[in-house]
Amino acid sequence: MVLSLKDIRNVLVLGCGTLGARVGLRFALSGFQVKMYDIDKDIFPSAKTSQTQLLQYLAKKKLFNPQKTEEVLNSITWTTSPQLAAQEVHLINESVTEDVEVKLKVWEQFGVLSPAYTIFTTNTSFLLPSMFAEASGRPGRFCAFHFHDIFHANVVDIMPHAGTEKWVTELLVALSTVLEQVPVYVEKESPGYIFNSMLIGVLNSACTLLADGIGSVETIDKSWMGNLKTGIGPFGMMDAIGLDTAWHVAKRHEGRVNKKFISLLRQMIDDGKLGVKSGQGFYSYPNPRFKDPNFLS
Amino acid sequence: MVLSLKDIRNVLVLGCGTLGARVGLRFALSGFQVKMYDIDKDIFPSAKTSQTQLLQYLAKKKLFNPQKTEEVLNSITWTTSPQLAAQEVHLINESVTEDVEVKLKVWEQFGVLSPAYTIFTTNTSFLLPSMFAEASGRPGRFCAFHFHDIFHANVVDIMPHAGTEKWVTELLVALSTVLEQVPVYVEKESPGYIFNSMLIGVLNSACTLLADGIGSVETIDKSWMGNLKTGIGPFGMMDAIGLDTAWHVAKRHEGRVNKKFISLLRQMIDDGKLGVKSGQGFYSYPNPRFKDPNFLS
Ligand SMILES: NC(=O)c1ccc[n+]([C@@H]2O[C@H](COP(=O)([O-])OP(=O)(O)OC[C@H]3O[C@@H](n4cnc5c(N)ncnc54)[C@H](O)[C@@H]3O)[C@@H](O)[C@H]2O)c1
Ligand SMILES: NC(=O)c1ccc[n+]([C@@H]2O[C@H](COP(=O)([O-])OP(=O)(O)OC[C@H]3O[C@@H](n4cnc5c(N)ncnc54)[C@H](O)[C@@H]3O)[C@@H](O)[C@H]2O)c1
Repeated sequence: MVLSLKDIRNVLVLGCGTLGARVGLRFALSGFQVKMYDIDKDIFPSAKTSQTQLLQYLAKKKLFNPQKTEEVLNSITWTTSPQLAAQEVHLINESVTEDVEVKLKVWEQFGVLSPAYTIFTTNTSFLLPSMFAEASGRPGRFCAFHFHDIFHANVVDIMPHAGTEKWVTELLVALSTVLEQVPVYVEKESPGYIFNSMLIGVLNSACTLLADGIGSVETIDKSWMGNLKTGIGPFGMMDAIGLDTAWHVAKRHEGRVNKKFISLLRQMIDDGKLGVKSGQGFYSYPNPRFKDPNFLS
Repeated sequence: MVLSLKDIRNVLVLGCGTLGARVGLRFALSGFQVKMYDIDKDIFPSAKTSQTQLLQYLAKKKLFNPQKTEEVLNSITWTTSPQLAAQEVHLINESVTEDVEVKLKVWEQFGVLSPAYTIFTTNTSFLLPSMFAEASGRPGRFCAFHFHDIFHANVVDIMPHAGTEKWVTELLVALSTVLEQVPVYVEKESPGYIFNSMLIGVLNSACTLLADGIGSVETIDKSWMGNLKTGIGPFGMMDAIGLDTAWHVAKRHEGRVNKKFISLLRQMIDDGKLGVKSGQGFYSYPNPRFKDPNFLS
């Protein structure tokens, strides 16, 4: 059964972590009925707080009318029951932990529970939709739909696997615009899609320059920021991504990433330096040096 | 003889091409007496036009008082005589053709002609100061001082070779600020300094994505621009750099660059597509698609 854009009304988000909370809010802002599901109900309060704070931030930027706060938040419901979650849902966005086993189990479960018409999407950052398409039981309706940070970097990757039906990718491209995202249509499976592949290129070069003693963290970031006129450089970005995540990605690409840098990351993690989330990484937070107005002078 | 910042009054620019014209103008704007030297006097009219146009552009952006045009341009003199050029010059910035043989000959020549106190700097993009330091006859006073586009990307790399005296690099760091540039101090020799190394990382990833059929030129640029909120993506940047230059750099790093992409570049060059300067590259100029306000929607 082929769905069209106007058929999509009820959206289910699997996983209410950093990205799940944002994805759910973005759908609600565009008028969808949203169900948020997580295996761990203790995550709900922080997900709700993060959504409320995002709405305040958008209101401050005049991108959202704060009088609509209640209406938007009321269109979002929360559950730890997979059966309730799956009921009458037209589209699923899976944003659970970035782990093959976890995602496989979730897709086996929701492949059985969901109505036959549901479209399945995964928000995985570095895994591939073909890894889960069969497990979901409906590979033709399975596609990667990968957000970035949604409210600032408003880009969404649509990446089919070889068996995704064409109408599914077309529907997701159309849906992107409704969600105020720039659609990036990735023609073939590629780990890291398009932006993350290029970002790894930059970060890898930056790490090699640091490990080889060519420049300091601040020098390398200055060079990037001064040339591209952006507010953050490679090491600031790594702090934002989280040094533990950066280490996992680096380990996965071991042959291509500078060895001295992988050891440096490992040492920082062992010292409790995880980046923004731990208050210390390449910079100290909440007021890292690179945000100083004089950083580039 | 150690010089200090206030000793630097007369600056000589060797080579009046794209970068030489800009470097000379930048020094003149900061109050230095500038001599422009080239082996080919036919280049002078276009270098002068480019300086005049840059002043008009800066005036339009309210970054320059147009009543000072004459004063600034009068502080710049032009010569094809190496003897006249070298007289009483405190600092040389060499911006001749990016070719080892050409640069070696120029440094042998000016090493003999210049006063003993002159500081020598090269603006090379991918070669190393140690390649020319000995030929100049005064390695201790020799350093790379590498500009980007000067008026938009106002970053300058200061990269010593092992024999550069410390006061020279310190003086160049201080001089950067006078020239309204962000100083990027590169601790050890590295081809491509810092920014170009990272840029190659991005461009190489972008090229592999294109050659492998993961995304189109426009998709890849959209992904970069939408995520980083910049006005140009990797393929737009390559068009600006020039596809012939991009091909030369790619050939130099042959093992690391995607082979299919090198062939694609070669084919484009053979078809007369050199990027912005030939009117056609990955995009058509003067109105490339990526500058369309709807490009990201
Ligand atoms: N963080 C980012 O910047 C970012 C950006 C784009 C995409 N992503 C992707 O989004 C996904 C989620 O990332 P995140 O950063 O939000 O992770 P997170 O760790 O913040 O959240 C993951 C959530 O999944 C839940 N979960 C785990 N197993 C589950 C199960 N069996 N059923 C239901 N819920 C379960 C966890 O309880 C947790 O709340 C990952 O695939 C990641 O690669 C992350
Ligand atoms: N174009 C850029 O974006 C850029 C940016 C940073 C640095 N650079 C570097 O600056 C240098 C010049 O680059 P460009 O783009 O201005 O090149 P260009 O080809 O526009 O200009 C080179 C000039 O050098 C002159 N020249 C050649 N041999 C000479 C000699 N023996 N004596 C005097 N002059 C001679 C030529 O006549 C020509 O006018 C290169 O080393 C390049 O790597 C270029």
